[in-house]
Amino acid sequence: MSQQLVVMKFGGSSVANPERMGNVARRIIEKKRAGDKCVVVVSAMGDTTDDLIELSQKINPDPRAREMDLLMSAGEQISSALLAMAIQAEGEKASAFFAPQLGIRTDSTHTKARILDIDGTRLKKELENGSIAVCAGFQGLNAENDITTLGRGGSDTTAVALAVALNADVCEVYTDVDGIYTADPRVVPDARKIDRVYFDEMLELASLGAKVMMNRSIEVAKKYNVTLHVRSSLNGNVGSLIIKEDEDTMMERPIVRAVAADKDQARITAIDLPDVPGVAGRLFGSLAEANINVDMIVQSSSEMEIGKNDISFTVSSTDLKRTVERMKSIIRELGGGNVVFGDDVAKVSIVGVGMRSHAGVAAKMFQSLADAKINIEMISTSEIKVSCIINRAQADEAVRRIHASFELGQPAAAVA
Amino acid sequence: MSQQLVVMKFGGSSVANPERMGNVARRIIEKKRAGDKCVVVVSAMGDTTDDLIELSQKINPDPRAREMDLLMSAGEQISSALLAMAIQAEGEKASAFFAPQLGIRTDSTHTKARILDIDGTRLKKELENGSIAVCAGFQGLNAENDITTLGRGGSDTTAVALAVALNADVCEVYTDVDGIYTADPRVVPDARKIDRVYFDEMLELASLGAKVMMNRSIEVAKKYNVTLHVRSSLNGNVGSLIIKEDEDTMMERPIVRAVAADKDQARITAIDLPDVPGVAGRLFGSLAEANINVDMIVQSSSEMEIGKNDISFTVSSTDLKRTVERMKSIIRELGGGNVVFGDDVAKVSIVGVGMRSHAGVAAKMFQSLADAKINIEMISTSEIKVSCIINRAQADEAVRRIHASFELGQPAAAVA
Repeated sequence: MSQQLVVMKFGGSSVANPERMGNVARRIIEKKRAGDKCVVVVSAMGDTTDDLIELSQKINPDPRAREMDLLMSAGEQISSALLAMAIQAEGEKASAFFAPQLGIRTDSTHTKARILDIDGTRLKKELENGSIAVCAGFQGLNAENDITTLGRGGSDTTAVALAVALNADVCEVYTDVDGIYTADPRVVPDARKIDRVYFDEMLELASLGAKVMMNRSIEVAKKYNVTLHVRSSLNGNVGSLIIKEDEDTMMERPIVRAVAADKDQARITAIDLPDVPGVAGRLFGSLAEANINVDMIVQSSSEMEIGKNDISFTVSSTDLKRTVERMKSIIRELGGGNVVFGDDVAKVSIVGVGMRSHAGVAAKMFQSLADAKINIEMISTSEIKVSCIINRAQADEAVRRIHASFELGQPAAAVA
Repeated sequence: MSQQLVVMKFGGSSVANPERMGNVARRIIEKKRAGDKCVVVVSAMGDTTDDLIELSQKINPDPRAREMDLLMSAGEQISSALLAMAIQAEGEKASAFFAPQLGIRTDSTHTKARILDIDGTRLKKELENGSIAVCAGFQGLNAENDITTLGRGGSDTTAVALAVALNADVCEVYTDVDGIYTADPRVVPDARKIDRVYFDEMLELASLGAKVMMNRSIEVAKKYNVTLHVRSSLNGNVGSLIIKEDEDTMMERPIVRAVAADKDQARITAIDLPDVPGVAGRLFGSLAEANINVDMIVQSSSEMEIGKNDISFTVSSTDLKRTVERMKSIIRELGGGNVVFGDDVAKVSIVGVGMRSHAGVAAKMFQSLADAKINIEMISTSEIKVSCIINRAQADEAVRRIHASFELGQPAAAVA
């Protein structure tokens, strides 16, 4: 008997119908019968959350966030009750828990609340009784006992937070893929499943288009050193562990861990802006007000005219229209400049902690793109990643070239 | 400005879709703007509860009641959030509240919990802030903060209980009819809307086929003397008040208040049972065990054989099959007798507190049935009602005859 305390998180597609729910129930029971204590966190079934949002839009296009949270949290309430019933149907003890019983206290930032504190007493009692605790993800209570939600993908955060509160041995995140890959296997046939990846790398990957887990849940896992295990809900294969860097000096530490592409990118360039202090501040301040998330920013002096500036940046494709409108009005206010934009770009990135101690990694990436005649429009780097904005139609080819260039299909030799 | 504190209860069909929800929102706002403080109680939208039950049946035909409550209560959680949004959309302040905030504490009898205590602090604060409180009906919390539900139609009970806790001036129950009628207007064209009806009469009417409100909510209203106002959600007409008897000596007090018919009845007769002590006890004990609700019971000594007994009783038509099976096995155990049954009967009843002080009321009812050549199969009486089991095909005619005979279409003269 392994006798671990395991938090198991299942997403909405894993429990989208009674049949899949039954499969998940048997998966959980298997672990329970192997001797583990199981805390399950579940998202809303299939499209429930979207359906509820759509319904609310018909009633009120701009509802108060407090009521929106009450509405949306019903999705996880329903799925947790049903999953507990599915486990009971297979003859195991299970109880469902939603916000008022989970002990998750949050601030009052409705629709994207932050967890303040977790009281694990009730869940611990449940585990001591030999029962499986099935917890509604995504939700908490604020000081007024009003329900709050943790933002899209918040069930991941619930799972990690409960793992912290209960001092779990591992937090397993079940998905429709086998784990984290060196690249998207649909694009790169010899992409390899990564056995272990560091929190910092995973944080970069999550924001670079690898949509396995929400960034915030990884941050919490990193802060409290909760080992994450991303694995498939469809088979029993071992997936990918996400772990703390300094606890693992023996593991493979390649220079580049993975290559990712984000095709949901649009590029905007404001040209011939007046070169006076405060221009960039006003520009991006105005976009922030509109809740537009700006990703990469590059500023360069115009070559053509002295006293003028160009600023290029990228936003999510869905924000392009709003961004351009906003930009035009700012440019009018600033009294000069023009806007050009394109919705035909992608961001290709490499990530790896080994870059810190190795020179020439970026150059090698640029060279492999140049060899494939792929033009780089913008570049952005951090300590452990390099990102390039390129033509979207060439993104898959770029990923394949980079993957091959860094030999990511082969288990890498360890580098200190 | 009228300045009353009003609890307004809306059923599931009144909020079945965004359009109807908007109508209800405007109805509430109208009252608010007339100067009243409004607490709204809402049921789950349309068929939501049935849909959730059906879904759960696919996963577990016999789920634990605790999880069933968590599941079902989501329906009212959703409708309360959406109705609050609908009010907000019309420019009024509104907040939605579900079990953890309503302050309704219940026992732990899941799926039919009893209210133990209500803390109205939170709702009172909301009203003082000039906001409309929209409350999820049907639900409470037990001592473990587990969600409980109050049984089918439990939103009526929520409304009455909140009216008690908040010391409301009136509890308005909105339905698809204009109020309580002297008979079903679809059957009796000159049926008249009753202005006022006593709690005891309403309790009888509710169990006699007039499905306007749940019995239990009327019991609570009676106990705490909460005036109920049953009225239409489709127009602004004054409906029927349900009030305490001794507070109103001036009101019309006819001998018969209304006539009701319940066509969901089946008759069972056990014939030639051994005439020994304990037979009836074993028989009805066994039916109670099977959760079969027995309505009218008539026992008579058999005319044909000495030392043998006949027992007739009625049950809901839906319970007939189970009842007959159960009866056959009991008769085998008792070592004698036979079962005959019929699913072709109806119960026709008259109700009125005036009966207490008037003789000959039952006789007048029997005569009007006899005049119409309607045979009476069973009779049962209480202080304020007379019920007859007759052939179901003649039920409508019986109601019309009785309604005419007691002149219920005319506002009655007061009788002391």
